[in-house]
Amino acid sequence: MQTPPPQHPNADVRMRGFAERISVDAAIAWLDAALDGQQQLGCEVVTLDVAAGRVLAEAVTSKVNVPNFQRAMMDGYALRTIDIAAASAENPVSLEVLGDCFPGEAFDGKVEAGQAVRIMTGAPLPPGVDAVLPVEQTVSAGKQVLALTNLPVGKNLGHVGEDIRCSDTVLSAGRVLRPQDIGVLSSIGHGQVTVVRRPRVRIVVTGDELLPAGAQPQGSRIVDANGPMLMALARRDGGLPSQLGIVADDRDSILSALNEDADVVLTSGGSSVGQEDHVPTLLAEFGELAVHGVAMRPAGPIGMGTFGGQLVVLLPGNPVACLWGYDLLAGRAIRRLGGRPADWPYRKEVASLTGELISPVGRLDYVRIKMARGAVTPVPSSGASVLSSTTRADGFLVIPMDVAGYAAGTEVEVFMYDSP
Amino acid sequence: MQTPPPQHPNADVRMRGFAERISVDAAIAWLDAALDGQQQLGCEVVTLDVAAGRVLAEAVTSKVNVPNFQRAMMDGYALRTIDIAAASAENPVSLEVLGDCFPGEAFDGKVEAGQAVRIMTGAPLPPGVDAVLPVEQTVSAGKQVLALTNLPVGKNLGHVGEDIRCSDTVLSAGRVLRPQDIGVLSSIGHGQVTVVRRPRVRIVVTGDELLPAGAQPQGSRIVDANGPMLMALARRDGGLPSQLGIVADDRDSILSALNEDADVVLTSGGSSVGQEDHVPTLLAEFGELAVHGVAMRPAGPIGMGTFGGQLVVLLPGNPVACLWGYDLLAGRAIRRLGGRPADWPYRKEVASLTGELISPVGRLDYVRIKMARGAVTPVPSSGASVLSSTTRADGFLVIPMDVAGYAAGTEVEVFMYDSP
Repeated sequence: MQTPPPQHPNADVRMRGFAERISVDAAIAWLDAALDGQQQLGCEVVTLDVAAGRVLAEAVTSKVNVPNFQRAMMDGYALRTIDIAAASAENPVSLEVLGDCFPGEAFDGKVEAGQAVRIMTGAPLPPGVDAVLPVEQTVSAGKQVLALTNLPVGKNLGHVGEDIRCSDTVLSAGRVLRPQDIGVLSSIGHGQVTVVRRPRVRIVVTGDELLPAGAQPQGSRIVDANGPMLMALARRDGGLPSQLGIVADDRDSILSALNEDADVVLTSGGSSVGQEDHVPTLLAEFGELAVHGVAMRPAGPIGMGTFGGQLVVLLPGNPVACLWGYDLLAGRAIRRLGGRPADWPYRKEVASLTGELISPVGRLDYVRIKMARGAVTPVPSSGASVLSSTTRADGFLVIPMDVAGYAAGTEVEVFMYDSP
Repeated sequence: MQTPPPQHPNADVRMRGFAERISVDAAIAWLDAALDGQQQLGCEVVTLDVAAGRVLAEAVTSKVNVPNFQRAMMDGYALRTIDIAAASAENPVSLEVLGDCFPGEAFDGKVEAGQAVRIMTGAPLPPGVDAVLPVEQTVSAGKQVLALTNLPVGKNLGHVGEDIRCSDTVLSAGRVLRPQDIGVLSSIGHGQVTVVRRPRVRIVVTGDELLPAGAQPQGSRIVDANGPMLMALARRDGGLPSQLGIVADDRDSILSALNEDADVVLTSGGSSVGQEDHVPTLLAEFGELAVHGVAMRPAGPIGMGTFGGQLVVLLPGNPVACLWGYDLLAGRAIRRLGGRPADWPYRKEVASLTGELISPVGRLDYVRIKMARGAVTPVPSSGASVLSSTTRADGFLVIPMDVAGYAAGTEVEVFMYDSP
């Protein structure tokens, strides 16, 4: 054929592809701006036993002193230091033992000159005393006790409010609650706590070649890997994910799935520019398709936008692209919506590359790596469809858009998959 | 008094105190040996949606190829490369389009010389073809398509087993399952997976001064901080904790709590050598008190042993001591029993000290620290009863037994509380 090729109506679109891919930085900037404009998620009250790891919605101020009474910090004798000022092992001082002070019980009586009360750790001080002499520095002798040393006023006493003072702000809003925070909340009388609601994440997996999780792969159909993976990822990042099977790859089914109520919608599959890629088209028609195509590999055919006020992240169907697209954008959205730090929940390590890595300038690359004996080696092979490359890998590194790669021996920062 | 003090029957014990405290290393060695001697926890089968973070009980081998058919990796045309060997943009080659190949559907027919089939990403290849020409390198012209380039055999094809081959071991026993592992398990047809049972952790909090979580502190009674904190810690480490209120501080109540079925028992309070410290005595009488007193601060009055075959860790009642004792020994036991790495789940940082730190040789010290602008400052104050010191702190450092402290400016390794 010598004639110029005829122009098909679709040819322009097809040929254009993702000519206008934006940078990863620009995609993150759009996402952050969208999240800044979003209303805060509401709160909910949860009991302490499920509060660890949740995000505090408001600062917690104590209404009590902890402790609210002076108490003994050692097992020993509560006494007046003035009475034993001259005591030593060679010259013990004898005191009359009035009785016992037990934890949780107020002592009935007052300690006068020459008297003491046997006291246990945590018990409230009886009136009149100003220190506790540890039992190791005494000898018991019937109704008397011998003090083998003197001690300063206030010794071995726990003071009112020494842990927490009434009106102290003990934890700030936004705190991701740690086990010891739960302990502190309990100690100030909080049996429950107000936390940020978990963002509801709707997972919409499309693809007529897909069978639902739990099925056996058969014929030309494969089993959905992205749905279960996205469920686990969203949960890791504090989301409350849900997935209703596999959504049929037609406009009506996808539209109806997008209409479900959620805080974020993650779609998987059909995110590119082909005629059968319905999700971007639907978003452009009925919502906003703000980002489509990002200059990176994998997950270049990713998109973001809104639908009925909900944030939508369009993830590619190839599972490695789905994982990376999730981590780059969707996870960030879920973490930020839930009041968590935007940063990846992957611990960082720095180590040197065993070989050269090449990446075209103008595109960010996500590289799965193995870490062995403190050195980083890229996982060979592995197109975006080979999910097992991410289970063989120990983590990943990112080659920024303006970097053409790294020479062997370069110290690189890697992110470890095994983190939490 | 000039006479030597009389010897009380209890004086020996009291004066001895923890004279025989063992080193932290020896305590860990006892624990590890006890765990090595313990039977493996059994397994349970869980569905994929709750499997992330669990520990795989046995290696998983695939019984299928993923994918199990040759498929297109791009939208385009499935064809015979030999037909378009001479194609270029200036000299396109025209092929007859037989029809469409959709994902999940086998194509009904065979591609012969001069023919092609329009194919979508993920669709199975029709018989007769050996590559997929991306749609961007074609022009559609009615029932014909123009190939604008040639390409090598196998281009843009996904091969049988390229992700996972039948009989591959995809995940090893002991793996802490990651989100992408869940995806891979789903892709090979596993809707459920066999994981190590979570260790049952019985939390026994004693102390007559204690009110249960949810109560308001009042009079000389404080609210239990250790129970809720230990619940959160044990859960963080993969345990299945339970606590039944506050156990009365008497031998019968404690004995009956120790008798409850569990894999590990953690007691809180009454762990020292006083007359009212029932737990060590009960263990010595009815089980084994193997370790009692460890050369460290806080949590020196810690203990370990067994009771009816169960491992028991005796944690001090002071909440900071309880936290540190948990992290040092109890958490290690729970993680190891559940098949997890023994290491702390705290990320490490290295930074320089802003001031001097002093610690007596012969004792290991646990120091709460603040991290600011890359420098480490100890949290001031804070006896073992001040739990809020651990919520104000960003993490901790450990001064080993044989170290007398660190000079200002020393680079120290710290463990960050905010990790998972």
